[in-house]
Amino acid sequence: MKTNPPASRPTEDGLIARYFAPLAGHGADGLRDDAATLAPSPGCDLVLTADAIVEGVHYLPDDPPASIARKVLGVNLSDIAAKGATPRGFLLTLALPDDWTEDWLAGFATGLSEAAMAFGCPLLGGDTVRSAGPALIGVTAIGEVSHGGMVRRMTAEIGDILCVSGTIGDAALGLRLLDGSMPKWGEHLGSAARGVLIDRYRHPSPRISLARSLRRHVRAAMDVSDGLAGDLTKMLAGGGRSAEIILSNVPLSDSAREALALDPGLIHTIVTGGDDYEILCAVAPNQVDAFIDESLAVGIPLARIGTVVAGDRAPVFRRPDGSEHAFTTRSFSHF
Amino acid sequence: MKTNPPASRPTEDGLIARYFAPLAGHGADGLRDDAATLAPSPGCDLVLTADAIVEGVHYLPDDPPASIARKVLGVNLSDIAAKGATPRGFLLTLALPDDWTEDWLAGFATGLSEAAMAFGCPLLGGDTVRSAGPALIGVTAIGEVSHGGMVRRMTAEIGDILCVSGTIGDAALGLRLLDGSMPKWGEHLGSAARGVLIDRYRHPSPRISLARSLRRHVRAAMDVSDGLAGDLTKMLAGGGRSAEIILSNVPLSDSAREALALDPGLIHTIVTGGDDYEILCAVAPNQVDAFIDESLAVGIPLARIGTVVAGDRAPVFRRPDGSEHAFTTRSFSHF
Repeated sequence: MKTNPPASRPTEDGLIARYFAPLAGHGADGLRDDAATLAPSPGCDLVLTADAIVEGVHYLPDDPPASIARKVLGVNLSDIAAKGATPRGFLLTLALPDDWTEDWLAGFATGLSEAAMAFGCPLLGGDTVRSAGPALIGVTAIGEVSHGGMVRRMTAEIGDILCVSGTIGDAALGLRLLDGSMPKWGEHLGSAARGVLIDRYRHPSPRISLARSLRRHVRAAMDVSDGLAGDLTKMLAGGGRSAEIILSNVPLSDSAREALALDPGLIHTIVTGGDDYEILCAVAPNQVDAFIDESLAVGIPLARIGTVVAGDRAPVFRRPDGSEHAFTTRSFSHF
Repeated sequence: MKTNPPASRPTEDGLIARYFAPLAGHGADGLRDDAATLAPSPGCDLVLTADAIVEGVHYLPDDPPASIARKVLGVNLSDIAAKGATPRGFLLTLALPDDWTEDWLAGFATGLSEAAMAFGCPLLGGDTVRSAGPALIGVTAIGEVSHGGMVRRMTAEIGDILCVSGTIGDAALGLRLLDGSMPKWGEHLGSAARGVLIDRYRHPSPRISLARSLRRHVRAAMDVSDGLAGDLTKMLAGGGRSAEIILSNVPLSDSAREALALDPGLIHTIVTGGDDYEILCAVAPNQVDAFIDESLAVGIPLARIGTVVAGDRAPVFRRPDGSEHAFTTRSFSHF
């Protein structure tokens, strides 16, 4: 978004027709109306969530526009998946800076189209406006779940096993490689690991295929977006619940291990950095094996990282020697 | 939003708990989860729309925050009403500039709460982010309508009567009074008229109570947001349809008439300025009387402004002497 715009650009309607109408789902009538219709399947509730990302705050100005599109849809569908729901569609609010270019927009639309297809989530409507500042991209995502079946965030019980999907910390490390701070460990990291971590930052993979086993087996769930430590604290807030986490059980990718070997202090970035878009959940002990088996069957590994315990203090992350990892901050705040 | 922020401000979670949780509707669980559930009434479709407003683009930086809140909800529910739907809830994306203050936010939340109550539309969720520029406020509004009953924009037929609710042009004139251009006519306008026009700019009144008669009697409808002339052109685009409008039948408030008497050139602002949030609709001739009677019964006056005719040219606005009013632009573009 750095080059000067050409003298003549399409109008808002022209832009919608060219770039976004091809993504429109059933009920959106080619985006030729001011609203879309949607009916949940019989016996289902809709699940609604909204998340926005801002240039320079939630993504980097030089991130490829296709990646930005995939990111904004991914972070929203991560919430839908964590609630045990299946994507049905989304609405897009696109606030463009004055120097937007058609190249950027074409890349964005291509990425959005691919992501919508990959995630099974068509475009239902939206709005395009001047931001009068940096770009802002907001999505409202809509999923569906059997009536009353949405998986809640706050319903973990003492004694539940805490599990997390995939690996933690990759995206936060990827961001440190991109944000211009040029970390020492980054200079020594292999190029393969570097690529993996940056890809994880740019391309969150919402755990859509985990939704069914979440509905069947877990007591509470949320996605990890602001850092494992902080999100776990949110999940257990109130109700006299805390957690004991075994730090060495937090699942790491080979790439993150490589970085951690170069700088052991990165464990803090890993557990507090965020942008993971993995699923954190609390599972009754008698459901854990079935849950993990079912999840593996759809290709998603799960790690048992700890237990919900009684108490009002913040969750404890314990090292192999039994000592506590102390936090200066527990989550990354963009706000 | 002009004063410097205090050194310490609430976190995003604190802000949600203090200002927005009290507005949460059924299914939003006090905004303590990452998503809300919603099921349409049996036999109903949901109707979805999204519109965002930006400080300095769609509203003035000095507009009262309560007015801004009412405006963003109003412009969205205007779309819902135009589609014949009843409000069910909304999601809010609030992107705040770095110098936001708690005073501003408290005023915004109060206005939002009052509007949500007045319009029967509870808050279901949302996101609060740093805008890194001016404020942006996005809403996704959700309504419901009997299955298949959404009133469409593009379905007017040749011979249909074109009607518009309320009065046209007030908000556009109100904006001219506020935007610092100090028009000559503004200096001579009475203070009562001034107040009415400014109020119409700041506080759109979505025609929610018109939804039922729209469903029963009209062939096509949309709300007037970008100016009557331009929106009418959009409504009839394609399909060999145009319109003949009798300019003197376009309904004006006493305040707009007072302004027009001071400067006859304002007719252009009135029919192209936008921000009206009135309903423009096409009605089969044999339905017009019943439609107008039903609408009057819920307190909303309707004017017959013209007819859908065959042809591919842009709609014609005709003066009493039969001559055409020529347009340099047909609608206001914020983009």
